[in-house]
Amino acid sequence: MSGSDPADAVAPAGIEVVGLDADDTLWHNESYFADAQALFAEILAPWTAEGRDPVAANDATERRNLELFGYGIKGFTLSMIETALEVSDRRVSGDAIAELLALGKRMLAEPVDLLPGVADAVEALAARHRLVVITKGDLIHQEQKVARSGLVEHFDRVEIVSEKDEATYRAIIERMEVAPERFCMVGNSVRSDVLPVLAVGAHAVHIPYAITWAHEHVDDHGAAFPVLGSLDELLRWLDGAPG
Amino acid sequence: MSGSDPADAVAPAGIEVVGLDADDTLWHNESYFADAQALFAEILAPWTAEGRDPVAANDATERRNLELFGYGIKGFTLSMIETALEVSDRRVSGDAIAELLALGKRMLAEPVDLLPGVADAVEALAARHRLVVITKGDLIHQEQKVARSGLVEHFDRVEIVSEKDEATYRAIIERMEVAPERFCMVGNSVRSDVLPVLAVGAHAVHIPYAITWAHEHVDDHGAAFPVLGSLDELLRWLDGAPG
Repeated sequence: MSGSDPADAVAPAGIEVVGLDADDTLWHNESYFADAQALFAEILAPWTAEGRDPVAANDATERRNLELFGYGIKGFTLSMIETALEVSDRRVSGDAIAELLALGKRMLAEPVDLLPGVADAVEALAARHRLVVITKGDLIHQEQKVARSGLVEHFDRVEIVSEKDEATYRAIIERMEVAPERFCMVGNSVRSDVLPVLAVGAHAVHIPYAITWAHEHVDDHGAAFPVLGSLDELLRWLDGAPG
Repeated sequence: MSGSDPADAVAPAGIEVVGLDADDTLWHNESYFADAQALFAEILAPWTAEGRDPVAANDATERRNLELFGYGIKGFTLSMIETALEVSDRRVSGDAIAELLALGKRMLAEPVDLLPGVADAVEALAARHRLVVITKGDLIHQEQKVARSGLVEHFDRVEIVSEKDEATYRAIIERMEVAPERFCMVGNSVRSDVLPVLAVGAHAVHIPYAITWAHEHVDDHGAAFPVLGSLDELLRWLDGAPG
């Protein structure tokens, strides 16, 4: 593909079903995690052994636990507690552990904060396409966020999955009874929302989180896919598709 | 309904799809929780204030957290830690918290222990009916248990849900493209596997966990449904259905 002007990028014709990632595509998420990590570091500051970085240690704990815990805030909270024990050589106080539990609970109860323009864009998309939300994380928490989002009436289906890989997308596309070439996934993660979708013969659009420019993007994997700035841009892009 | 001899109970004709609960219907689960609670009490014994019962306190914590955490072992582990802080007035040691974390991780990694006769019964059921597993709990953990069960090839679908209510069953029956009167749910919980299923006009069979007798059962809600002793009995019961 050539050209970096979004007007150059032509949407594929006949998209019937649009798949929408949720966290950081429909609503803010990463920013909550960043806030939580800052609080985590603060809670642990008095307990962290000289030269240890609690946030880096927690990243390592999360990676180690990912296969067992999967994605989501309950696993994140368990990892924070594990890291707290580790960086403090198990000296961390009960009060600090209680603060970490409370932090996890606050994250679970956090209101859903839609990205700008999402409410209108989703409504307009739903008038033209069947929509399926495809998201990773804790089952009950993601269901609650979808319910709190005020968008649920626009979704044909909500798929909460443990991993966004080719098998997952193949199964969802089959369940939506749509041909892969008439399915387009949209999300902020190249690894989860774009590459496995292209691999099963469907379309994908990358909308980076907190980035507003738009251009054609060729990543390290050599895959070419459109990069847009918002769901609103996606809407105009899909509307501009031939026939 | 009359008669307590299972031979009296006639299965409805034309069941196409059988829904199977998983925990304590296909494999042992409650027994793992019972073991975990005993260990929990042991770990907390030195830290529990006079007159407090850590297991009863944890039941209360779990109930309080259910709406936020949903079902599953990650939430159970977080609740154990919360209870440990509570019954010890936050004096509990880091070593004890680490033991609770390790206990939760062991539960998540536990092998799947099928109930007697289940492997053969599921294979035989799958030869006659489409099967859908319907289970509550942590998404990734339930998926892993289904994968470890060795039964996955027999299942048309696996539905991991946050709540087993009428809306859930209605959606799954619709997704299976079967009429409610040709759907029969099977499980060990009257509240989750039987009553909401009957309420949507489908059939349900109660197979109590660790109980081997079979009879017709009328519960407090006035609902009448068959109670069988095993999946093997279910198989013979379905096979005995008229035409």
